[in-house]
Amino acid sequence: MRLIISGDSHGSAMFGVLEGFPAGFRIDLDRISWDLKRRRSGYGRGRRMRMEADEFEIASGVWKGYTTGAPITVVVKNRAGNPIKEVRSVPRPGHVDYAGWRKYGLPDLNIYVERSSARWTVAFVAVGSLLKQFLETLDVVVYSYVLSIGKITMDENPNLSIDELIKLRDNSPVFCPNERTSDEMVKHIDEAMRRGDTLGGSFKVIAHNIPPGLGGYSNIFEKLDSRIGAVFMAIPSVKGVFIGREDVSIPGREYHDPFFLKDGEIRRKSNNAGGIEGGLTNGEDVEVTVYLKPIPTLGDPLDSVDLSTMEERKAPYVRSDVTVVPSASVVGEMALSLVLAEAVIRRYGEDEYEKILSSVENDKKGRRWKNFDWD
Amino acid sequence: MRLIISGDSHGSAMFGVLEGFPAGFRIDLDRISWDLKRRRSGYGRGRRMRMEADEFEIASGVWKGYTTGAPITVVVKNRAGNPIKEVRSVPRPGHVDYAGWRKYGLPDLNIYVERSSARWTVAFVAVGSLLKQFLETLDVVVYSYVLSIGKITMDENPNLSIDELIKLRDNSPVFCPNERTSDEMVKHIDEAMRRGDTLGGSFKVIAHNIPPGLGGYSNIFEKLDSRIGAVFMAIPSVKGVFIGREDVSIPGREYHDPFFLKDGEIRRKSNNAGGIEGGLTNGEDVEVTVYLKPIPTLGDPLDSVDLSTMEERKAPYVRSDVTVVPSASVVGEMALSLVLAEAVIRRYGEDEYEKILSSVENDKKGRRWKNFDWD
Amino acid sequence: MRLIISGDSHGSAMFGVLEGFPAGFRIDLDRISWDLKRRRSGYGRGRRMRMEADEFEIASGVWKGYTTGAPITVVVKNRAGNPIKEVRSVPRPGHVDYAGWRKYGLPDLNIYVERSSARWTVAFVAVGSLLKQFLETLDVVVYSYVLSIGKITMDENPNLSIDELIKLRDNSPVFCPNERTSDEMVKHIDEAMRRGDTLGGSFKVIAHNIPPGLGGYSNIFEKLDSRIGAVFMAIPSVKGVFIGREDVSIPGREYHDPFFLKDGEIRRKSNNAGGIEGGLTNGEDVEVTVYLKPIPTLGDPLDSVDLSTMEERKAPYVRSDVTVVPSASVVGEMALSLVLAEAVIRRYGEDEYEKILSSVENDKKGRRWKNFDWD
Amino acid sequence: MRLIISGDSHGSAMFGVLEGFPAGFRIDLDRISWDLKRRRSGYGRGRRMRMEADEFEIASGVWKGYTTGAPITVVVKNRAGNPIKEVRSVPRPGHVDYAGWRKYGLPDLNIYVERSSARWTVAFVAVGSLLKQFLETLDVVVYSYVLSIGKITMDENPNLSIDELIKLRDNSPVFCPNERTSDEMVKHIDEAMRRGDTLGGSFKVIAHNIPPGLGGYSNIFEKLDSRIGAVFMAIPSVKGVFIGREDVSIPGREYHDPFFLKDGEIRRKSNNAGGIEGGLTNGEDVEVTVYLKPIPTLGDPLDSVDLSTMEERKAPYVRSDVTVVPSASVVGEMALSLVLAEAVIRRYGEDEYEKILSSVENDKKGRRWKNFDWD
Repeated sequence: MRLIISGDSHGSAMFGVLEGFPAGFRIDLDRISWDLKRRRSGYGRGRRMRMEADEFEIASGVWKGYTTGAPITVVVKNRAGNPIKEVRSVPRPGHVDYAGWRKYGLPDLNIYVERSSARWTVAFVAVGSLLKQFLETLDVVVYSYVLSIGKITMDENPNLSIDELIKLRDNSPVFCPNERTSDEMVKHIDEAMRRGDTLGGSFKVIAHNIPPGLGGYSNIFEKLDSRIGAVFMAIPSVKGVFIGREDVSIPGREYHDPFFLKDGEIRRKSNNAGGIEGGLTNGEDVEVTVYLKPIPTLGDPLDSVDLSTMEERKAPYVRSDVTVVPSASVVGEMALSLVLAEAVIRRYGEDEYEKILSSVENDKKGRRWKNFDWD
Repeated sequence: MRLIISGDSHGSAMFGVLEGFPAGFRIDLDRISWDLKRRRSGYGRGRRMRMEADEFEIASGVWKGYTTGAPITVVVKNRAGNPIKEVRSVPRPGHVDYAGWRKYGLPDLNIYVERSSARWTVAFVAVGSLLKQFLETLDVVVYSYVLSIGKITMDENPNLSIDELIKLRDNSPVFCPNERTSDEMVKHIDEAMRRGDTLGGSFKVIAHNIPPGLGGYSNIFEKLDSRIGAVFMAIPSVKGVFIGREDVSIPGREYHDPFFLKDGEIRRKSNNAGGIEGGLTNGEDVEVTVYLKPIPTLGDPLDSVDLSTMEERKAPYVRSDVTVVPSASVVGEMALSLVLAEAVIRRYGEDEYEKILSSVENDKKGRRWKNFDWD
Repeated sequence: MRLIISGDSHGSAMFGVLEGFPAGFRIDLDRISWDLKRRRSGYGRGRRMRMEADEFEIASGVWKGYTTGAPITVVVKNRAGNPIKEVRSVPRPGHVDYAGWRKYGLPDLNIYVERSSARWTVAFVAVGSLLKQFLETLDVVVYSYVLSIGKITMDENPNLSIDELIKLRDNSPVFCPNERTSDEMVKHIDEAMRRGDTLGGSFKVIAHNIPPGLGGYSNIFEKLDSRIGAVFMAIPSVKGVFIGREDVSIPGREYHDPFFLKDGEIRRKSNNAGGIEGGLTNGEDVEVTVYLKPIPTLGDPLDSVDLSTMEERKAPYVRSDVTVVPSASVVGEMALSLVLAEAVIRRYGEDEYEKILSSVENDKKGRRWKNFDWD
Repeated sequence: MRLIISGDSHGSAMFGVLEGFPAGFRIDLDRISWDLKRRRSGYGRGRRMRMEADEFEIASGVWKGYTTGAPITVVVKNRAGNPIKEVRSVPRPGHVDYAGWRKYGLPDLNIYVERSSARWTVAFVAVGSLLKQFLETLDVVVYSYVLSIGKITMDENPNLSIDELIKLRDNSPVFCPNERTSDEMVKHIDEAMRRGDTLGGSFKVIAHNIPPGLGGYSNIFEKLDSRIGAVFMAIPSVKGVFIGREDVSIPGREYHDPFFLKDGEIRRKSNNAGGIEGGLTNGEDVEVTVYLKPIPTLGDPLDSVDLSTMEERKAPYVRSDVTVVPSASVVGEMALSLVLAEAVIRRYGEDEYEKILSSVENDKKGRRWKNFDWD
């Protein structure tokens, strides 16, 4: 399975093409709309962005509501914006502007933002939402929540059930499942907006009830750790990714997750590994924590240089958001869904959804040690 | 360019095949030996491991000392060990054992460790050392140092030059360029060894004087962030990767790196971005921080379950190291060298080393804004 | 560089995404329209098909007429057809129908044709035309002509210049540069149409003035032979591909192309190799001959079986063409352009069109043997 | 699944690495030896080559005789030859010599032959033999035979069973299953040897009893036609590849293979498609015909030019074979085995051999049309 994303942020549409997805899976378009809405509605983004729905079409790979095995093309229309007329030669710190010009040399910094802007994540979410649905039908729940925005950090509450957590998150304008912290985050965002400033933060993505033995190590870059690194680090503004427990200062005795038996089934006493050992799922929740830098566009612009005259100038102001951490947490769900759906399909075969479904159910029942006639 | 690693840890040898490396580059075998020695000699590894030299052969792709464009095959002999005879059915927490069995089903946990063991990094270092040499001839310096082991963390000293830092590091048994911290780390390791415990930690890898405009975003997984995520997260025991400044709680005004002019040249006032903006190098140092869990094999073993009888058992003890953080920092240099060499070759063409050399020199001189006859 | 094609034949549009094409290349949209017109206008296709222009949009990767380095998305609208309502369960010999059902199992054979229909070549031609333009600006001419349709085969005329040949071809309704043979082919097609039959045939594609040393062998599947095999054999109806002289019964003395000097330049006395030796271009014309089976849909249908009842039935009739050989010859130009553009970009770097242009010009001047300080 | 081949022809060994092969398959080393023997023993190759056995080792990915899912590394030792000392500057027509120098520029033509020589096929055959075994345990028989050498062409005998054909072939020094033609071929080779000449020819490779529905079209280069084109055209000296019936001058009515029922099972009246429709296997024999040019090295050398002095010279004589068609037919079996094994693994999942085995058996029983609740 492979996902290709194209489209310019001021072009007519963004495109996502998913190759190698199995046939016979029924797509729920409303769920895709819902995830697209979540992506654009996190508090801290520009108002206009939050209100207009993203129009999308599944332009191929689906027949009467079911996937066909052919590539799935998702087209998400861009909003008609003001076309960019003026050549821009002053790079904004934190953006692709300067590096893009050094790479390609075309003398207009607007060009590089067309691709590098986070607009492409709208197509990523549309396709990823389909993959999340796919995993859900295998009883795998992929969900995310915001951990921190700027200086405000949530205390995790281990007593919440997944359903409770998701409900709290969905009631929070910043997708943070702690009501008090959520309020503080909103205030923190409002203050930053007043200062013309921006905020970074962090979020967590979890995949619950994933079958063990997914992933690979035949090629070292098939390890799920590697795939998670590759996909999450491609999300705009992401600077750091962690799998499992972040405090690596504790010794091995405390870090590693002992096995025990409960009602004859194999269990773990903890999940510091974050669900991945040796590059493979071990059956525990896959847990990824992601860190985002503050977005670079600022109301009160930073120092820069005009590349056409080589004189110092202020970076131009471009209408912007204060923080994208809540939106990025939705993108993160899709990143993990992509990695895991890919691993599911490699393990169970790429053709028929129904076969995958029955194979996963079978694998979740456990495996029995069988004798083998070694040479 | 593509690197393939194969070999079983108890097989005759480990193999690295590098495809698509340009012709005409002179290889220094002594430098490869030196990096292999660094990999095996970090304090905290088993004694035997530190002493025996790794024998390696470059079995293809080199003619009278120069690369030829053909795939480069590096063969690193494994030490003759005791062949494993006994079937093992008790998985060790933190290892691939359990997940590997759930994936493949073969009833001997020894099998999965053959691939998943960190032994393969010896071939990775051998090939990576060649790529580091390649970058060095382009005046790019790739170096690493240990930041923390267990509870002991180094304070960074911004006043050290690269040469001073590397010298201090090379004098430290744990590759930490602060003499006092280094001593504390050694003690911390000694204590852990006495307890039969293991330690994780962190290291930093830096690429200095890298040309701007490397990397890509045509495919979103060509972004250097994504490539760094993919390659570093494939290293055994790595749980977290950060590019640039880790404190994302500071606001955008402080995070982003303003431009200014110095003697007519474009400079940055800081490097919080860690040398990468929009997925591309921006000419500043590429800085990656890497977190490793404590290695799983413990002198005082953890709780487990015998999979063949489904009874609770202690995990077996396997001779092991206390910490691999210093060794892993050497592997990290190779990871960054791989990512950057790949980007260099994509930008400058894959065939002739000499052309790459002159193109890089030309690019480092800077770029001038040129007028363009837009339609 | 990588080309991804998606879209269903009865969906809203066909899509082509080209990743990794360099920035700064000026696209001529009229040339793309011209190639799309050639694709649909070969004699032997349904009348309606020949008349309606293909509407296309370059939806990303271009800024004010120039490529930007971002992925290029080409969208070609499908004509509004009658939506398919009836489930079909009788497979047509020669089509994907039966094999598609055995693979995916969805009980409607219409599904499999959506992807497998040759409609996707419209997007392939649109993107390929851009790559052909790119090669033309490097003074490489890629052209094709029809060699045979059914029983009618052209005698090649070695005395024609490229310009004369292309002019003759463009005046032929079947793209055959021999006026008399062209007339016979038209009659042969008319007769087949009357019988409700279909015709296969063959065409040749040539790349003239290509620089030597393109292609690779570091990975064996990078050899240009392998790439040509992969891309041409993906074209619908293609059953055979040949590079260079097809008569392999002649001995080596006659087959291999001797070198000689002409005005101090290296020349070949013949070009039986078809421009490729050892997987690389040798500077002579790259020549590929391609064989197509008759298209499968027939006015007078073949025997089949109803898969839902397991009773023998006639295959359904679907409106169709008599022959696609002329159209396929246009697709073949794009196949060779894709293979060669890819090789150009790997050799000269993927970022800047202008650098590629000057490097190719330099390479065409020849190479001088230089002394080397071997170890 | 992916195969990587490396090694220089005068290096210590040739290497094949196979990634992504399932675990639990029992390897028969004698079968690999047998295929290696067949590769080197075809009549028309140098005497020394035919006698010495190829020593090989499976250096990873196998545990007590069974595959483990880890990459399989096969090492085939090269014979100690005379090391090449003299720089060579006169290119041989038909070889990589000239094109390699134009690509890489290193001033010794010996360099380019190290990779481009057909020696690498020894590693390809070793790994491919394993894949052929894998298919055989799924009841798929992959076999080849020589059709023509130089001017001598065999008449196909449709009345032979597979067993009879293979027996006749194995008794023929040129692997041609027609005794009289075989004798003529031997004489033809002897004559060519006396003249210092070389011969090309053709062979056929067939996969019998392959399950239908293998291959793909989600990516157009996943079509089996494309994969067959890619892999066969990578074999040294191959200039042409055909799938199914080569005479495309017959009309569609005769070309396409009608369905009929026999004892309630779906059958085809012919197999002109060569077992592939729409890029997928249709359950009939996959048939590939392959054309090879005469090998280039000649006892009576061709005209050339000394690149270091730019003077006309005779190409150097290098000890050589007369024809490699019989040997190449063995390589062709491995090419088809690679393509089909890859398709099997993508369809049935990459992890467990036993699951693949039972899934294939199930698929061969046929598929039933099932009702579906379309939206």
